[in-house]
Amino acid sequence: MTLPHAVIETPVFMPVGTAGSVKAVPQHLLEELDARIILGNTYHLYLRPGHELIRRMGGLHRFMSWPRAILTDSGGFQVFSLNELRKVSEDGVEFRSHLDGSSHFFSPEHSMEVQIALGSDIAMAFDECTEYPADYSRARRSLDLTLKWASRSKEHFEKHKHERPWDESAELRAQSSDEQGAGIREQGTELAFETTDMGHPAEPTQANRGLKWGTVDFEGKMPSLFGIVQGGMYKDLRRESAERLVEMDFPGYAIGGLSVGEPRELTREVIAETLPLLPADKPRYVMGVGYPDEIVEYAAMGVDMMDCVLPTRAARHGLLFTSEGRLNIKNKKFAQDEGPADPECGCMVCRRYSRAYLRHLMAAQEPLSGVLNTLHNLAFYLETMRKVREGIEQSA
Amino acid sequence: MTLPHAVIETPVFMPVGTAGSVKAVPQHLLEELDARIILGNTYHLYLRPGHELIRRMGGLHRFMSWPRAILTDSGGFQVFSLNELRKVSEDGVEFRSHLDGSSHFFSPEHSMEVQIALGSDIAMAFDECTEYPADYSRARRSLDLTLKWASRSKEHFEKHKHERPWDESAELRAQSSDEQGAGIREQGTELAFETTDMGHPAEPTQANRGLKWGTVDFEGKMPSLFGIVQGGMYKDLRRESAERLVEMDFPGYAIGGLSVGEPRELTREVIAETLPLLPADKPRYVMGVGYPDEIVEYAAMGVDMMDCVLPTRAARHGLLFTSEGRLNIKNKKFAQDEGPADPECGCMVCRRYSRAYLRHLMAAQEPLSGVLNTLHNLAFYLETMRKVREGIEQSA
Repeated sequence: MTLPHAVIETPVFMPVGTAGSVKAVPQHLLEELDARIILGNTYHLYLRPGHELIRRMGGLHRFMSWPRAILTDSGGFQVFSLNELRKVSEDGVEFRSHLDGSSHFFSPEHSMEVQIALGSDIAMAFDECTEYPADYSRARRSLDLTLKWASRSKEHFEKHKHERPWDESAELRAQSSDEQGAGIREQGTELAFETTDMGHPAEPTQANRGLKWGTVDFEGKMPSLFGIVQGGMYKDLRRESAERLVEMDFPGYAIGGLSVGEPRELTREVIAETLPLLPADKPRYVMGVGYPDEIVEYAAMGVDMMDCVLPTRAARHGLLFTSEGRLNIKNKKFAQDEGPADPECGCMVCRRYSRAYLRHLMAAQEPLSGVLNTLHNLAFYLETMRKVREGIEQSA
Repeated sequence: MTLPHAVIETPVFMPVGTAGSVKAVPQHLLEELDARIILGNTYHLYLRPGHELIRRMGGLHRFMSWPRAILTDSGGFQVFSLNELRKVSEDGVEFRSHLDGSSHFFSPEHSMEVQIALGSDIAMAFDECTEYPADYSRARRSLDLTLKWASRSKEHFEKHKHERPWDESAELRAQSSDEQGAGIREQGTELAFETTDMGHPAEPTQANRGLKWGTVDFEGKMPSLFGIVQGGMYKDLRRESAERLVEMDFPGYAIGGLSVGEPRELTREVIAETLPLLPADKPRYVMGVGYPDEIVEYAAMGVDMMDCVLPTRAARHGLLFTSEGRLNIKNKKFAQDEGPADPECGCMVCRRYSRAYLRHLMAAQEPLSGVLNTLHNLAFYLETMRKVREGIEQSA
């Protein structure tokens, strides 16, 4: 998948950098982990520091010094999940900032404006993330809104996407000390997506390894807007949603409204039913998943992109994902364990630190605890996907 | 200064790694900053995770994966500063853990036992850090205790130092991805200290640059115990303390009981009076200082070693030290400042991130804020000392 800021090999797992930072991880370490695309949260960045400020600073890539790809969600999910008091109308959603209670209004047009100002490579349509459980009529009404909003999102996006704040020709300030660091690749102006048979992964090329810092030329390059399939847990609503979105002809499609409390079997079912309805020659993205075994499973089903706060959030709570399963590093049994978190992991944490030390850091509430735990979990997730891409089955 | 775990060029500033971690900074980044020696706090590590556990794990170097040098304080300062209810007798100090209120007893012998178990390169005598202000008779009594304790510290240390838990021949697990990473130098078994005229700094040699990981041979190598000069702010008591310690013949000497609330002119005065009483051909260490201009000043006076939580603690509060003076990164005026924290700093933070982004991270209470601020402040301090060593005057 060729984006303006990076070439992405799929299937891919995208670390979440909510407020312009993947929590506790400096960007150069993200690069060392070979993360190629991360998420930014439109809702959070809109509230603080604000999309206009970020636009003036040249966009989110420059602001946070992340030269690879960024996908922004639409803000829809947080508007609903972080705000008890909200007022939904056909126009959009009125809500109060969780930071200071001030009043705000999000609409498809406004969400597009914010995402374009942030300058993401991929923006998401403004949708209503249907809650779970929802009865049929509720899911029906929610879907009607989402479809109207999808159309409005696309209209506004197409009209204004050229306003993205990428310098036409700009040298990014940061110098990666490592030649193998982040980089920019120029390759076409449209989103280029190459599908491969799972059994024959795309060859990593010289072009997309060892990307170097350098002068960037974004002339003519545009961000892409993906549509989001909703419809609750109802097969027919999901079908309708997928078909209507495909009619609108987006460059990529996401399945939203999952991981909202439903049992895992249902998640799987909805994905299994919906995925085939989306064009296989365009990126297909399941939002908000999942556990390591889930992402392997969904990737095998044909999902190209996934994101989840799980590896990063769990890390800060001491839950580490390893080839031997999950472990809670706070556990007393690790107090004198000299081994690495994961004996089969070659990440910078497992090569250097013992479980005993990681446990101590958590017990002592040291800031380094979050840093190291997060680095490992992200390495585990990214390596898991790398193996999937190489056609090796990873059991979680 | 050649220690078992590293060659240290002096004057040197030692970052503080209180509970086995320099807060928020992974060890490999400490190595990138070229920190050669850090502090560990005996009091904290004794309480958690415990010196016996660390001894069993092969010592603090192995436990925290820091292959360079470690100096441990005696625990004396925290015993007094963190504990309102404490009972001092000639034997030692009874106190309660600030963690869980449990009762503990520290004596010179016990402090030595803990520091030997931790396996520091340099241990400090167990002293009573005289509070400020203290009248003459109080400082007198405190000094009497400290001198008795210095003698007991030395006796116990000399008898048991060989019990340090360094493997006689051990390959440290961590692999530094960077050839220029941490390393171990074998050079004699005693503390070797080379003094130089400030105008002619010791040449950095091939031997002490680009230290490599490798097989360590600690056979015959021993830790060193430094004595600590007390005496409050009284010239004659300080003189007596210095002379009595020199009689005991320590391999290095520290001036303690400063930065305890006294005005800076008094700090300077005490250092100026005491330093010449300590042998110039042995390391002279002022504990707990200071601001950037202070450490430059004291280094010019002949101080070889200093430590302070200031760069790291201030960082976590948003106070950055720069060539243009101190700045509070939280300040609104930085909200759109595209420039680096310090235009004259070449550290990994200033090369990559803007003041606006650093400010955003603080405002958003992102964990990365502490990481980046700390990396910069440490780089600033270490670079300040490096310039001093090169004979270039650094104005703070």
